[in-house]
Amino acid sequence: MLTIKTQRKNMTVSSGLSEEMKPEIVSLHPLDTAAAPKPELLCIFGTGDLGRSLGLRLLQSGYRVVYGSRRPHSCSPLPQGAQVMSHAIAAQSASLIFICVHREHYEFLETMALHLEGKVLVDLSNNLKKDIYPEANAAYLQRLVPGAAVVKGLNTLSAWALQNGLLAGKQVYLCGNSAEAKQAVAEIATKLGLTVLDRGSLSAARELEDFPLQLFPEWRLPLRVAVGLTAFFFFYLLIRDVIYAYVEQGKDISFRIMVSLANKVFPIVSLIMLSLCYLPGVIAAFLQLYRGTKYRRFPDWLDRWMLCRKQMGLTALGFAFLHAIYTFIIPIRYAVRHKLISHVVDEMKNNKTTPFYFDNTEAWGTDSFYVLGILGFFLYVLLGLTSLPSVGGSLSWREFSFIQSKLGHLTLFICTAHGYIYGWNKFLRPSTYKWYTPPGYMLCLIVPSVVLVLKLLLLLPCVDRTLTRIRQGWERTQPMGEMGESKATNL
Amino acid sequence: MLTIKTQRKNMTVSSGLSEEMKPEIVSLHPLDTAAAPKPELLCIFGTGDLGRSLGLRLLQSGYRVVYGSRRPHSCSPLPQGAQVMSHAIAAQSASLIFICVHREHYEFLETMALHLEGKVLVDLSNNLKKDIYPEANAAYLQRLVPGAAVVKGLNTLSAWALQNGLLAGKQVYLCGNSAEAKQAVAEIATKLGLTVLDRGSLSAARELEDFPLQLFPEWRLPLRVAVGLTAFFFFYLLIRDVIYAYVEQGKDISFRIMVSLANKVFPIVSLIMLSLCYLPGVIAAFLQLYRGTKYRRFPDWLDRWMLCRKQMGLTALGFAFLHAIYTFIIPIRYAVRHKLISHVVDEMKNNKTTPFYFDNTEAWGTDSFYVLGILGFFLYVLLGLTSLPSVGGSLSWREFSFIQSKLGHLTLFICTAHGYIYGWNKFLRPSTYKWYTPPGYMLCLIVPSVVLVLKLLLLLPCVDRTLTRIRQGWERTQPMGEMGESKATNL
Amino acid sequence: MLTIKTQRKNMTVSSGLSEEMKPEIVSLHPLDTAAAPKPELLCIFGTGDLGRSLGLRLLQSGYRVVYGSRRPHSCSPLPQGAQVMSHAIAAQSASLIFICVHREHYEFLETMALHLEGKVLVDLSNNLKKDIYPEANAAYLQRLVPGAAVVKGLNTLSAWALQNGLLAGKQVYLCGNSAEAKQAVAEIATKLGLTVLDRGSLSAARELEDFPLQLFPEWRLPLRVAVGLTAFFFFYLLIRDVIYAYVEQGKDISFRIMVSLANKVFPIVSLIMLSLCYLPGVIAAFLQLYRGTKYRRFPDWLDRWMLCRKQMGLTALGFAFLHAIYTFIIPIRYAVRHKLISHVVDEMKNNKTTPFYFDNTEAWGTDSFYVLGILGFFLYVLLGLTSLPSVGGSLSWREFSFIQSKLGHLTLFICTAHGYIYGWNKFLRPSTYKWYTPPGYMLCLIVPSVVLVLKLLLLLPCVDRTLTRIRQGWERTQPMGEMGESKATNL
Ligand SMILES: Cc1cc2nc3c(=O)[nH]c(=O)nc-3n(C[C@H](O)[C@H](O)[C@H](O)COP(=O)(O)OP(=O)(O)OC[C@H]3O[C@@H](n4cnc5c(N)ncnc54)[C@H](O)[C@@H]3O)c2cc1C
Ligand SMILES: Cc1cc2nc3c(=O)[nH]c(=O)nc-3n(C[C@H](O)[C@H](O)[C@H](O)COP(=O)(O)OP(=O)(O)OC[C@H]3O[C@@H](n4cnc5c(N)ncnc54)[C@H](O)[C@@H]3O)c2cc1C
Ligand SMILES: Cc1cc2nc3c(=O)[nH]c(=O)nc-3n(C[C@H](O)[C@H](O)[C@H](O)COP(=O)(O)OP(=O)(O)OC[C@H]3O[C@@H](n4cnc5c(N)ncnc54)[C@H](O)[C@@H]3O)c2cc1C
Repeated sequence: MLTIKTQRKNMTVSSGLSEEMKPEIVSLHPLDTAAAPKPELLCIFGTGDLGRSLGLRLLQSGYRVVYGSRRPHSCSPLPQGAQVMSHAIAAQSASLIFICVHREHYEFLETMALHLEGKVLVDLSNNLKKDIYPEANAAYLQRLVPGAAVVKGLNTLSAWALQNGLLAGKQVYLCGNSAEAKQAVAEIATKLGLTVLDRGSLSAARELEDFPLQLFPEWRLPLRVAVGLTAFFFFYLLIRDVIYAYVEQGKDISFRIMVSLANKVFPIVSLIMLSLCYLPGVIAAFLQLYRGTKYRRFPDWLDRWMLCRKQMGLTALGFAFLHAIYTFIIPIRYAVRHKLISHVVDEMKNNKTTPFYFDNTEAWGTDSFYVLGILGFFLYVLLGLTSLPSVGGSLSWREFSFIQSKLGHLTLFICTAHGYIYGWNKFLRPSTYKWYTPPGYMLCLIVPSVVLVLKLLLLLPCVDRTLTRIRQGWERTQPMGEMGESKATNL
Repeated sequence: MLTIKTQRKNMTVSSGLSEEMKPEIVSLHPLDTAAAPKPELLCIFGTGDLGRSLGLRLLQSGYRVVYGSRRPHSCSPLPQGAQVMSHAIAAQSASLIFICVHREHYEFLETMALHLEGKVLVDLSNNLKKDIYPEANAAYLQRLVPGAAVVKGLNTLSAWALQNGLLAGKQVYLCGNSAEAKQAVAEIATKLGLTVLDRGSLSAARELEDFPLQLFPEWRLPLRVAVGLTAFFFFYLLIRDVIYAYVEQGKDISFRIMVSLANKVFPIVSLIMLSLCYLPGVIAAFLQLYRGTKYRRFPDWLDRWMLCRKQMGLTALGFAFLHAIYTFIIPIRYAVRHKLISHVVDEMKNNKTTPFYFDNTEAWGTDSFYVLGILGFFLYVLLGLTSLPSVGGSLSWREFSFIQSKLGHLTLFICTAHGYIYGWNKFLRPSTYKWYTPPGYMLCLIVPSVVLVLKLLLLLPCVDRTLTRIRQGWERTQPMGEMGESKATNL
Repeated sequence: MLTIKTQRKNMTVSSGLSEEMKPEIVSLHPLDTAAAPKPELLCIFGTGDLGRSLGLRLLQSGYRVVYGSRRPHSCSPLPQGAQVMSHAIAAQSASLIFICVHREHYEFLETMALHLEGKVLVDLSNNLKKDIYPEANAAYLQRLVPGAAVVKGLNTLSAWALQNGLLAGKQVYLCGNSAEAKQAVAEIATKLGLTVLDRGSLSAARELEDFPLQLFPEWRLPLRVAVGLTAFFFFYLLIRDVIYAYVEQGKDISFRIMVSLANKVFPIVSLIMLSLCYLPGVIAAFLQLYRGTKYRRFPDWLDRWMLCRKQMGLTALGFAFLHAIYTFIIPIRYAVRHKLISHVVDEMKNNKTTPFYFDNTEAWGTDSFYVLGILGFFLYVLLGLTSLPSVGGSLSWREFSFIQSKLGHLTLFICTAHGYIYGWNKFLRPSTYKWYTPPGYMLCLIVPSVVLVLKLLLLLPCVDRTLTRIRQGWERTQPMGEMGESKATNL
């Protein structure tokens, strides 16, 4: 029976429901505050910003805190309720010590190694740059104090976030060689409202120390693609529009660079990047069809591409946003107003009789053009909204993928149609091909059209059926069939 | 050795505050890693996407993981650190087994029923459609393995979310007949950073399995209302504007459908839906006044209506957004530019002497019209922003309700005024009533006006006082007066 | 004493992995549901909205719930699974009681003091206004029932949030004199998905009770500044533009107030407020340079200013948004169209020969003006997006500060340049200085220019180096050098 009880305790703990405890709960003895258990005592070395903010937070979460300082009697103001002592005495009073000191000053810890025997040392340090030291700070610390259990972690928190209580639900990483020590730190972190991820042994410390130094790593590829495309189309259109006009007609229309030209480049880049969002999904599907299985890894480049689609899409949205605003201000531009007035005056001067024939087709065409643009932009913004972490997180997987995949492809379709209508009556005019180059919008329609055609092929019932089966685990040349393995929420 | 144990216990305790443990903490023995407790071992059946992602996550949270597989020696790559065994051996080594296998392949579990006696089986499966099986997957599993404690749950997580660590703070549901088994699963889920909600016994499994299949259930009513209103006003205005012009004047102005007509429908639908957001609150208040108590439930339709106000409001915002963009592009439309030019030329041709009298009232009127529209849109966007989960969550209840209720009614008032000014000098003109039908904007002002008048009545001091008392628990015909029951943060 | 210990252990464990439990897990005995431990029983006094929602939530999280009510047989519908009893009997059955009753009805608790001896009483009450009672509700409760351990807390939750399960990750505060009692409440809160912060003894109850009554406290200063600036510039421009035209030229251009004048005031206020966002950072830097240390606190006004920069910036964004929309609708305004037409007609009437000279400089100037405005607005929106809690929370500290500080200053620079170009050729014209007053845009460029110049000074290598050292803990007149204390993630 004993084993059962123990087991039960283990299972129910976090909420404390074992039946043998009930009686006492019901007739609870008068609370006697003197006998109440003291909260756990934690030690912090270092009274800088980080040390102070961390201490404040620990105190608020119900811990007692003691600081270890080189000059315990003259250090900067510490959170109320904390004690300050010399390093050695502070270390003795607690079993877990947060090291909030710069790595450059770790040496003094070596001299204290005896006091730190058997303690858990949490290394929260970061460096100013990558690879300035041969070993990770935490590995260095472990070398200095071999008798302690060093845990690297929490270093992604800023003093600022700690101080302002912006921790709830945030993920932090831990690593260390002692499972017990990691467990202790994990529990403190959980009480602070953090979610803890164990990254294994102390050899992962370097990786953890590199985290806070990252500057938008997943944005790099999309931004590079964006800059590349922008530069290319800018110069392409500069030549075709401005320089062509200057060379062939002697007209200086360089003022167009600022708005007209930019407002051609932006939609082009936006559309191409939008299609680049949906191209890898299509490639992946064809690869799976070709291979007849989903159990072989995609090539590296495809993997990396698929992982930055969100950033790709948001960059595309940025360009679309710029395009929209550039379009809205068109009519208040000097050049546009000037052209309108000149137009009227010209008409009047030449005294035409039917000067203003209203072209119904033109009205339909341009209006459809605008309407498609507006709808596309609307859906674009919707995609962007659902990619906000808090919105996306409140959607079910099916809802998220309905918006991102179904509405996403619809967005691509509408935006591509917007592009086609733009050039609807210009495709066949020779004057369009200045210096034998196609206009920008024609170039930008290639990739989206390809993506849409390929996607259409994938939607053919027979292809779709095969693909669905493959994605559910079926394999064309099944060796011995573990096809029963469950796919993710497989809708 | 005793001190070590105590210490260890203390470490695992999430807060560890018993005073009898303190001494050992202070004189901590050197950590001896060999004796450290091994983390708990969990078993996963199935090596598909879900199994792999879940295993990765469990490993990262500090568990040990063993996979059960039909072909343990030739399965797809598994997360580092996990073991793979045959189903039977894997099952023996752990007390809790995650079933990441499609329901279609559950039969093999029946043959293993003996090995699964007394184990906790977590059923994470989902189906592709509703009601394709007579019983819930989890109930089926329990029937196959009656000796095990089946827990349904975590099935709302996607392999994708698991893999990318997007779990922090997410809510998951559990159900099962064994409280102990649920508790064990709940603890694992909590360690993964999830928030667990117990939905009762295994009979709730069906409901849980239907969750991931839902596609925007709360959006259905608002979207239907929106589609209905849009269709009605579209055809109404099509008849009044385009068909009327064609029939009575022989003019083809069908090109107006794309932009002009749409830009009349959008604001109309937006305003009506905005007022439908605030109508149920007013009805509820009058019902409470009439009944003299707040302790009787609202009729079902009112309840459902009140629950989808957020979606109603956001749909209204979507239409307002479209209306705004449609308005911005007006001046660059071909038809508008054409009209402007024709206008000038006409004036010139007819050689009027005072052709361009500047109408001050007109200037004030149209400018007020635009300004009200802009302010209304601004407030609209503000309402939308605070309904983002992360923004709303950071507001106090009083702040949220200040914005949603006070500013919301202000928005409604401003947008309604925007509508009235639009028609200010047209209400009395007979030409307005083509074919004896009132124009669209007149129809759309009815509901908002009613809501505003009713709201005004509710703000009368005497009515307001009674309502406040009712909402604080007072009842007109109080039977025996438990009026002391606390209302929610009742500001 | 043993029972107490068991209870305590039971309360504090949360993961329970002590090694002596491992063996049993592996060879798990058949689950025997009859013997399964009953979940903990909690009592709720009061069956109002709050009581009901809280009970529902507790049941869902796996607790058993009993309500104490004055009329247990005739109260409003309670969540399924909960029991209702008289207050006295309900109190006896549980050790922890949630008091969901208005403070006005607390007296009955005094009569029950005997039954409440040794219980934990959680006071969730709020008041309708600040300072309507001499003592905090919780203090009053403690006075009525001195033998119980009163814990104030959870009062920031609304019944609505509880009912709709919007709790995950939310922060709540606790205070109370008994650490043990607070611990018990904290554990329940944690199971509900809340993050708990301990605010100390019961004397903090007043503060906690004032929380839900706050209405945007951090927004007050920015909004006041915004209203002040708006009012000042509105009247200033009213005099300079409208009244001046009326007095000196006898023209009534009062219609301009609605749009033209507002659209001058908005960008002015926006730019000044944007610069006020970045001014305190610069002042702080110079103060640190002057003092030669970062360890002395900033004066109070600077501290307060720095803490409301986010709200300052978002208010500025609001004005920028209004400015953008006001600008987009310019061309559809009656007055603008009228002016355009008059312009053309005038030109025609006077029959000029070269009426429409195209000014290239003008074209470049106005286009640059618009482009800078658009880019500035784009960056503005980016700043606003990253200040959404869920977006900001997903960025590393370095990323957040890159956007807010680097891109923020860039935004300020671009917007200031936008302002300069607006007045580029008007600065030296005497006609600009009507009644010897400078135009509004000139006034509004002063603060941004000062901020940018000061920031530039700070970027000088020598100044920057000193400042960086100071911010890393170096002090010019270092007393005894604890410079090793770690600064926060110090990038
Ligand atoms: C403004 C904007 C914002 C965006 N935000 C986001 C964002 O927040 N997050 C994001 O991810 N993308 C985002 N994107 C990019 C894009 O919308 C999504 O990546 C979109 O989901 C791609 O859809 P897809 O159908 O091409 O590919 P996928 O959704 O990847 O999948 C195609 C098909 O393959 C299936 N499938 C996928 N993976 C597997 C698998 N491993 N095994 C079996 N079947 C599988 C899916 O069920 C689907 O049917 C955004 C784009 C834009 C324009
Ligand atoms: C763009 C946009 C976004 C929106 N987003 C949201 C959103 O995120 N969430 C949302 O809920 N709505 C949203 N709405 C809809 C709408 O703004 C809110 O529902 C708004 O709170 C309704 O206000 P109300 O005063 O009519 O009703 P309510 O706020 O429901 O209440 C009216 C009065 O009744 C009182 N009261 C309410 N319930 C009770 C009760 N049970 N017992 C006693 N008194 C009670 C309140 O204190 C209040 O004084 C949105 C609307 C728009 C346009
Ligand atoms: C639309 C918009 C939204 C905004 N949203 C936000 C927001 O969400 N949150 C927000 O905070 N602000 C926000 N702001 C305001 C503003 O962008 C930020 O406050 C910005 O970080 C100020 O940058 P700064 O360089 O002047 O000052 P800071 O970032 O305060 O710092 C200046 C320098 O001092 C250093 N420093 C700061 N504190 C310390 C210290 N204690 N010890 C040593 N060095 C220190 C920093 O490393 C930095 O190099 C917003 C502004 C706008 C326009």
